[in-house]
Amino acid sequence: MREIQADELEPLATGAWILGAGGGGNPYLTHLNLRRLYEQGTRVSLMDPMELADDALVATCASMGAPLVGRERMSDPRFAAKPLLAMQKYLGRKLDAVMSIEIGGSNGLYPLMAAAMTGLPVVDADTMGRAFPEGQMTSFAIDELPLVPLIVADIRGNEVVVPQAENAKRRERIARGICAELGSVAATCSAPRTGREVKQHGILYSTTKAIRIGRVVEDARRRHEDPVQALVEAESGIVLFKGKVQDVERRATAGFLRGRSRLLGLDGDRGAMLDLEFQNEYAVARRDGEIVSTTPDIICTMDSESGEAVGTEMLRYGQRITVIALHPPEFFLTPKAIERVGPRGFGYDFDYKSALAAA
Amino acid sequence: MREIQADELEPLATGAWILGAGGGGNPYLTHLNLRRLYEQGTRVSLMDPMELADDALVATCASMGAPLVGRERMSDPRFAAKPLLAMQKYLGRKLDAVMSIEIGGSNGLYPLMAAAMTGLPVVDADTMGRAFPEGQMTSFAIDELPLVPLIVADIRGNEVVVPQAENAKRRERIARGICAELGSVAATCSAPRTGREVKQHGILYSTTKAIRIGRVVEDARRRHEDPVQALVEAESGIVLFKGKVQDVERRATAGFLRGRSRLLGLDGDRGAMLDLEFQNEYAVARRDGEIVSTTPDIICTMDSESGEAVGTEMLRYGQRITVIALHPPEFFLTPKAIERVGPRGFGYDFDYKSALAAA
Repeated sequence: MREIQADELEPLATGAWILGAGGGGNPYLTHLNLRRLYEQGTRVSLMDPMELADDALVATCASMGAPLVGRERMSDPRFAAKPLLAMQKYLGRKLDAVMSIEIGGSNGLYPLMAAAMTGLPVVDADTMGRAFPEGQMTSFAIDELPLVPLIVADIRGNEVVVPQAENAKRRERIARGICAELGSVAATCSAPRTGREVKQHGILYSTTKAIRIGRVVEDARRRHEDPVQALVEAESGIVLFKGKVQDVERRATAGFLRGRSRLLGLDGDRGAMLDLEFQNEYAVARRDGEIVSTTPDIICTMDSESGEAVGTEMLRYGQRITVIALHPPEFFLTPKAIERVGPRGFGYDFDYKSALAAA
Repeated sequence: MREIQADELEPLATGAWILGAGGGGNPYLTHLNLRRLYEQGTRVSLMDPMELADDALVATCASMGAPLVGRERMSDPRFAAKPLLAMQKYLGRKLDAVMSIEIGGSNGLYPLMAAAMTGLPVVDADTMGRAFPEGQMTSFAIDELPLVPLIVADIRGNEVVVPQAENAKRRERIARGICAELGSVAATCSAPRTGREVKQHGILYSTTKAIRIGRVVEDARRRHEDPVQALVEAESGIVLFKGKVQDVERRATAGFLRGRSRLLGLDGDRGAMLDLEFQNEYAVARRDGEIVSTTPDIICTMDSESGEAVGTEMLRYGQRITVIALHPPEFFLTPKAIERVGPRGFGYDFDYKSALAAA
């Protein structure tokens, strides 16, 4: 267990945004909230998952909804803690720590707000190692741990508990239906996990990984080097495409942000084009019509100059973008995981294609 | 407290279906379930609300959803009792009795199934004195009693608790969203009420009223008299129209059955036409374009021969229908109630118009 330092908050935000694969929501506002809390003297502890007692109880906290809406309806620490406190009340016992459902995007920082408000430590782990759009895509769900009770709350007086669901997909649909009804942004606290379960089924050390990635990008910027190149080298990733956004199509539908964008090539990619499709996160990249990379590869669009990640809700005409792919956690390459988080899990009728395997 | 007799089940079903105002769902299957339970020796007790101890706790049980779907996915006693048992578990205490949310339609009989499975008595009361489509239209909601916790369950393994909602309308929308996600039919158990609250805010003796109405219709049939006329006389109602169904338009949308139908006049109404609009229940009747009756009047379409109520989901071309209006409970004529259950509560931009007041 160690204190997260004030100067780690920005790299954490930068790294989490990259691991968001275009989704997870921009961590900017969550980062600002945490900075203010730190300025006020609050500190959050990061706990090595191996320090967890087997019978400790860990709450997984997250914001749910469409990233586009998240930009307008700001989250705040009190709101983040609300379902966690409701969960303690529902279970009739205290929880021992909090963790992220997804390290990617705003949710990578989200549990730090709940932790700051409750004094609980944050476990250095998540259940995606990136961001995915749906609840059945977590390592916990894929390993068939029960995902209930789930608590969904909004900033007004609404609170919903799901004590039982027939399966992970139904739980996700019920939660998504509630979320849409609450205005497409909600704070959630999922089935608390035992320390043993987190150690066995979590994606471990992902908070540390996000901070590390963020530092690589920031250090390169400081040294006036190419931050995208530095990142790709440090993480054994690959540059898929350099180009300019020619077209973006987006719709906030049934609690998701779905759409596609087209990039026209620049530099070495001049004359080519890249099409990206997303459901909150990027799912497929096609170069001149041919699939070059799919989920669960971490496809990320970055500002070619600053190396700042550009979320699917922020893409706009004319942006100069470098598209990269990073390795997903190995857990997601197993057949039972690929079924859920590969293209077929997103409704496509083709198999996982990795640009990284070919590299 | 008295035992509901086997020969009261059919009049209860007939009367409840009439009080459904076209909605509430056909009580036929619930009636069959109860008959089977009675044949097996089960008996259900009907409790005078005035016998309730002030601190008794009464569960309000109901089926929620689109009537059209309810015809395909049958309810059964075990399913009806499920949210009631979940409520006892959630509250950590036993409940003392059950009651109907709405006496109209299948929900008028629904609590008898839950009662049969749990041995609890049914209170002779409801919260609508008819059927209305939405949860904020109950006397409990209009009198601003808290409507949470609410439990929604389906026949599979899904269960949802709403412990807090900002207001009745939001609670209704959240519940409706969950219901739609569960396939547009769900069993619910709402905020248990104290005996004192039931006595002060319930619509009392509505089970007895439904049985009485059903008996009037059945007695007239047996005597080969006009059952519709007998009903209208016994309940100081009015015949709005006699005609033949020329057109029906229906859509199951967002958990409701919405639509309209047009009747061409017969007998004394020859040459005229009547348009009916419904959201599960009938909301407005227009004769040759002019509004003649609106909710909360109990507008009911009945088979002109048999006096059997015809629900909004059963209307079809060519049926010979008599449209009647019955008095709603006086509670719903108060200004604060009319706001919720009058035409404006259904989204119309005009005021309550009663055919009965003019009669």
